[in-house]
Amino acid sequence: MNVAIHRPPVMSFASDNIAGASPEVVQALMKHINGQASAYGSDPLSQQVKRKLSEIFEREVEVFLVTSGTAANSLCLSSMTPPWGNIYCHPTSHINNDECGAPAFFSDGAKLLTIDGPSAKLDVERLRARICEKLGDVHTTQPACVSITQATEVGSLYTLDEISTIGEVCKTNGLGFHMDGSRFANALVALDCTPAQMTWKAGVDALSFGATKNGALAAEAIVLFNPALVTEMNYRRKRSGHLLSKMRFLSAQIDAYLTDDLWLRNARQANAAAQRLARGLVGLRGVKVPDGTEANILFCKLDPAIIDALLKAGFGFYHDRWGPNVVRFVTSFATTAVDVDYLLGEIRGAVDRLPG
Amino acid sequence: MNVAIHRPPVMSFASDNIAGASPEVVQALMKHINGQASAYGSDPLSQQVKRKLSEIFEREVEVFLVTSGTAANSLCLSSMTPPWGNIYCHPTSHINNDECGAPAFFSDGAKLLTIDGPSAKLDVERLRARICEKLGDVHTTQPACVSITQATEVGSLYTLDEISTIGEVCKTNGLGFHMDGSRFANALVALDCTPAQMTWKAGVDALSFGATKNGALAAEAIVLFNPALVTEMNYRRKRSGHLLSKMRFLSAQIDAYLTDDLWLRNARQANAAAQRLARGLVGLRGVKVPDGTEANILFCKLDPAIIDALLKAGFGFYHDRWGPNVVRFVTSFATTAVDVDYLLGEIRGAVDRLPG
Amino acid sequence: MNVAIHRPPVMSFASDNIAGASPEVVQALMKHINGQASAYGSDPLSQQVKRKLSEIFEREVEVFLVTSGTAANSLCLSSMTPPWGNIYCHPTSHINNDECGAPAFFSDGAKLLTIDGPSAKLDVERLRARICEKLGDVHTTQPACVSITQATEVGSLYTLDEISTIGEVCKTNGLGFHMDGSRFANALVALDCTPAQMTWKAGVDALSFGATKNGALAAEAIVLFNPALVTEMNYRRKRSGHLLSKMRFLSAQIDAYLTDDLWLRNARQANAAAQRLARGLVGLRGVKVPDGTEANILFCKLDPAIIDALLKAGFGFYHDRWGPNVVRFVTSFATTAVDVDYLLGEIRGAVDRLPG
Amino acid sequence: MNVAIHRPPVMSFASDNIAGASPEVVQALMKHINGQASAYGSDPLSQQVKRKLSEIFEREVEVFLVTSGTAANSLCLSSMTPPWGNIYCHPTSHINNDECGAPAFFSDGAKLLTIDGPSAKLDVERLRARICEKLGDVHTTQPACVSITQATEVGSLYTLDEISTIGEVCKTNGLGFHMDGSRFANALVALDCTPAQMTWKAGVDALSFGATKNGALAAEAIVLFNPALVTEMNYRRKRSGHLLSKMRFLSAQIDAYLTDDLWLRNARQANAAAQRLARGLVGLRGVKVPDGTEANILFCKLDPAIIDALLKAGFGFYHDRWGPNVVRFVTSFATTAVDVDYLLGEIRGAVDRLPG
Repeated sequence: MNVAIHRPPVMSFASDNIAGASPEVVQALMKHINGQASAYGSDPLSQQVKRKLSEIFEREVEVFLVTSGTAANSLCLSSMTPPWGNIYCHPTSHINNDECGAPAFFSDGAKLLTIDGPSAKLDVERLRARICEKLGDVHTTQPACVSITQATEVGSLYTLDEISTIGEVCKTNGLGFHMDGSRFANALVALDCTPAQMTWKAGVDALSFGATKNGALAAEAIVLFNPALVTEMNYRRKRSGHLLSKMRFLSAQIDAYLTDDLWLRNARQANAAAQRLARGLVGLRGVKVPDGTEANILFCKLDPAIIDALLKAGFGFYHDRWGPNVVRFVTSFATTAVDVDYLLGEIRGAVDRLPG
Repeated sequence: MNVAIHRPPVMSFASDNIAGASPEVVQALMKHINGQASAYGSDPLSQQVKRKLSEIFEREVEVFLVTSGTAANSLCLSSMTPPWGNIYCHPTSHINNDECGAPAFFSDGAKLLTIDGPSAKLDVERLRARICEKLGDVHTTQPACVSITQATEVGSLYTLDEISTIGEVCKTNGLGFHMDGSRFANALVALDCTPAQMTWKAGVDALSFGATKNGALAAEAIVLFNPALVTEMNYRRKRSGHLLSKMRFLSAQIDAYLTDDLWLRNARQANAAAQRLARGLVGLRGVKVPDGTEANILFCKLDPAIIDALLKAGFGFYHDRWGPNVVRFVTSFATTAVDVDYLLGEIRGAVDRLPG
Repeated sequence: MNVAIHRPPVMSFASDNIAGASPEVVQALMKHINGQASAYGSDPLSQQVKRKLSEIFEREVEVFLVTSGTAANSLCLSSMTPPWGNIYCHPTSHINNDECGAPAFFSDGAKLLTIDGPSAKLDVERLRARICEKLGDVHTTQPACVSITQATEVGSLYTLDEISTIGEVCKTNGLGFHMDGSRFANALVALDCTPAQMTWKAGVDALSFGATKNGALAAEAIVLFNPALVTEMNYRRKRSGHLLSKMRFLSAQIDAYLTDDLWLRNARQANAAAQRLARGLVGLRGVKVPDGTEANILFCKLDPAIIDALLKAGFGFYHDRWGPNVVRFVTSFATTAVDVDYLLGEIRGAVDRLPG
Repeated sequence: MNVAIHRPPVMSFASDNIAGASPEVVQALMKHINGQASAYGSDPLSQQVKRKLSEIFEREVEVFLVTSGTAANSLCLSSMTPPWGNIYCHPTSHINNDECGAPAFFSDGAKLLTIDGPSAKLDVERLRARICEKLGDVHTTQPACVSITQATEVGSLYTLDEISTIGEVCKTNGLGFHMDGSRFANALVALDCTPAQMTWKAGVDALSFGATKNGALAAEAIVLFNPALVTEMNYRRKRSGHLLSKMRFLSAQIDAYLTDDLWLRNARQANAAAQRLARGLVGLRGVKVPDGTEANILFCKLDPAIIDALLKAGFGFYHDRWGPNVVRFVTSFATTAVDVDYLLGEIRGAVDRLPG
């Protein structure tokens, strides 16, 4: 874990979207500012990105680059559902809470049906029961696809078995299977598996492969494993204003992101920071840390006096949204051991000041 | 006009979207890769962009940055029309031909009604007649807004008077007025007027302020002069996936673009290249050049043997789309005098080889 | 309660949409088959319907006739919400379960948010809490309107106080207020209040005034109390194919329905049949009837052997959808005392055969 | 042609939607007001309508009844085009001018592209050229389907050969083929061919089979010859509010319409009235009648003094919309020889009063 950057410690652990970008990504842009390249993705660099992702996923994939996760998710979902379709997702999912109804907009009105389950993961038995309801009943929107987030919005992980089981449910029932991978790399290095195992080998049809949160400026790759979705995606992307003319600058970001394992190194850094933080919190008075922080999000319970102290010291984080005294810390590729230790130092100081 | 770059001459004059980017723009990105900034546009840099644009337009404006012209246009139009509205535009307009129906998608089905006119500019008398048809008739879509492109898709310019006249028609009839300014800077320096004169002083409500074609990587600013459109725009942008999380990287592009008149310098370079080309073509055998190339697009008629010779030499451009032997050359901020002279040299050689 | 019709007893209590129509309604159609009338609602009969409804509601109202409840509901809702709006409704509501996503289609993607509460009535305290969530947060769909069903889908009734309280919440928070009145007359006669009290005096903006279930062939009136919705409704109705050319035939149905209190007489007949059934069931072995059947829907619990016996005898009704052994009986304007007694006779026979 | 009805002569020739209805249609409704029938089209009468239409079209067809032509047209078109599709139609077509953008609403934004041609019929050579433009170009909406009106909006007829030629173009190019048959019966009896010849044998995939203008109250049948459209149509109809609960009352109209050739008798009456009118006008001073009135619409040129005289006498018709002094007379199933002769008498009187 990198500790050498000379700068004031990072003070906000509110989200991974407040970080900057990896220098390699911007340097790649600089390489392409001169010269001409054909527009809209027919340039050599965009072709190279497709080849790299095909190698990484160990099969031919189709790639559509866009600049936001909301766009990637909604484009995937709208290519998998008719306007009268149901999209099954967890109540805490980003598509349900944080995209201002984008899936309904892109799909002309498809319905998000939430399937609850612990740790922000949808329960497959509930899913099985739900998708059998009112099948073929013209009065009701009909099962169309399932969307899961990996790593989830609370930092938990679907195991490979869990993904495969959902994949089988989808296949058996003719449903599309989408993975919102805005923290794909964090999940991958935590599970220590291959990209293929975590996606198409488990039945995933379409992936929102996130890069923005993990070092890019604004770059997400829609990766399609199901070739039936390709033609439609082309028109959907253009029609929604997400086909960039100077595509090479989007491709350059993803290309740099995939080069020399930058994406994996960045994710390991973010995950390691969260784990370092978790280890440092264990056993402190006034602090409760659950087992098993694997990705880059840590939920814990802090004594209100500790929360106050941190806020006064200028730290940024969300608290009391998920229950009283519950605090969420998010680390990123830019979070160093020094940053974590600085935060831990403040927490320990506040613990020491707690009344006996 | 800059002539000093040491590189092979630029060979394609097909479009301004095949150019790269201004170094200043990418250098600005590099400045912001470290440190944290709040997301979604609440960062200081994004606020600064709003202030700069307010200064440039000599009034308070609201700014919404996006990454494509199609997004900027459709977001503006959809905030100005109900689903049963008419959007009046020229038949050759980008929104009519080149956006895969995006305005209809964003607006839930509004109708593009084309108003013809010479030089790709809609004829205001035809507009006047058209917007009176079937007013209030529930069987027919109803007048909602007018969209013009400045500079137009063929490189021509609406005069300030022409814009004002359309603005008055809009105001009198309660219609919104949108300007697709994907070549806004090229038009501005050609007309030698102020941004205020070319927009809100002439009645424009919403502007797609283009930067991508003129030196940015992927950055367009929706500039709203009509405050009634602001709240809606916020939700429309998010809902369509066009609100970037790391907004500072989009703001950094526009900020650099506006700094030290980069945007005006770039546009002047592009326009000068087109004029140098036009001057060089005048009087050549087998070549017909119309008067008055003002922006960065030049249409001319070339003897077919000249066209063949240029294609064989590896030049890129569109031809025979707008009539037999009609050729379109597009220059950009990256086109130098050397590039133009190289092209002219080839043309002159081909002319010399024409049979007497 | 009418008992005199000579026909075999009605055997199905599954829904009120399986009944036929009132003779008066069809006779009214016959009156208008000759002669000419202007189309699309400008005929005198359509104007008369508007006047009659204005009298009934004790104020000027705007009326838009359509042929289905789904159309009436979705047209009302879509005129009260932007595409990024929330429509609050009970989980059991028709708009949530039985319209195949029509509200999302008509509104270009607005979201149904369910507010639970006992007896299929949304709990106003939960509503209050919910509509304050994430106000103005661009990442989330925003509060737009509330929809309640009167009488509800399970036959319960909102009291006037309950409606007024919801109306106040809507007014205070700038939300539209819609009432799905597909069983409006049944609710009205049960509450013994005026149409004005049950609607606009309690804050309702738009009403789906149902007639089909209560004696018409296919006729529902959208009644608007909020004049701000009128212009938009005109275009929305036409654009969705719900403006009939020979409107007089739709108007004739509603006109007859309102003449000589046919609508109230029909509703009383349906309600009386349900109450007669409830009274007959009280105290029978193997039968549990809840208190307070007020409208035309009766839920009860029957011993499985009774259910089997009724099914074998050819009766039609839904059962075991709302819990084990729960049976729903729906009566209509066409249900007579004879019909009810015939059903009761069968039930009593089955009770007698129950093992001691 | 029926001349025996004792009533004042019909004075309006403005449209066929101002007529009433055939008594047989309303009598059929009366038959079904008692008794119960299952809802939403699963009743025996609705099944019978499907069988009757299958017999009439000499093959198995799928039938979806709705209450307006706009609904029938838009449901057909939206099941044949993606949101980014082109619908080719004549500029004068009802879908282009008179449905308030319904096709765009139902299809989430598909584009109407007009193909001109004489007599309100689209020119097949222009169609051929148009559908090859920008094929597969992601920047442009793509060819999806063709819609023709039979008889057209001006009363002209596509010959069987013309329909077949368009059908071949559609088949060869993978386009859907829709026929707006709001005057289907008038065209059929004029061409003296079979329903099969005029539709699926000529390549039509989906037909809006009109009954409202020709004797029903409000009833149109979507007839699908292409089984691939069936599943989707079911959901589209429900979702747009066009699935009636008491479907038997819609079915009863169509059933009566098809019984004992009522639909053909009505159409013959309307056509005969137009032809009687045309014959009566031939040779009059101040009157020009084109050859070949075949269906129930007659265009002619009248001296302005004649127009004035008719208006003063209280006749209703459209004039001066299609050119100076051009008058359109529309007859219907309810127009008798007496009505025509009464109009002709007035015209002859006005002719006699014309200055020498």
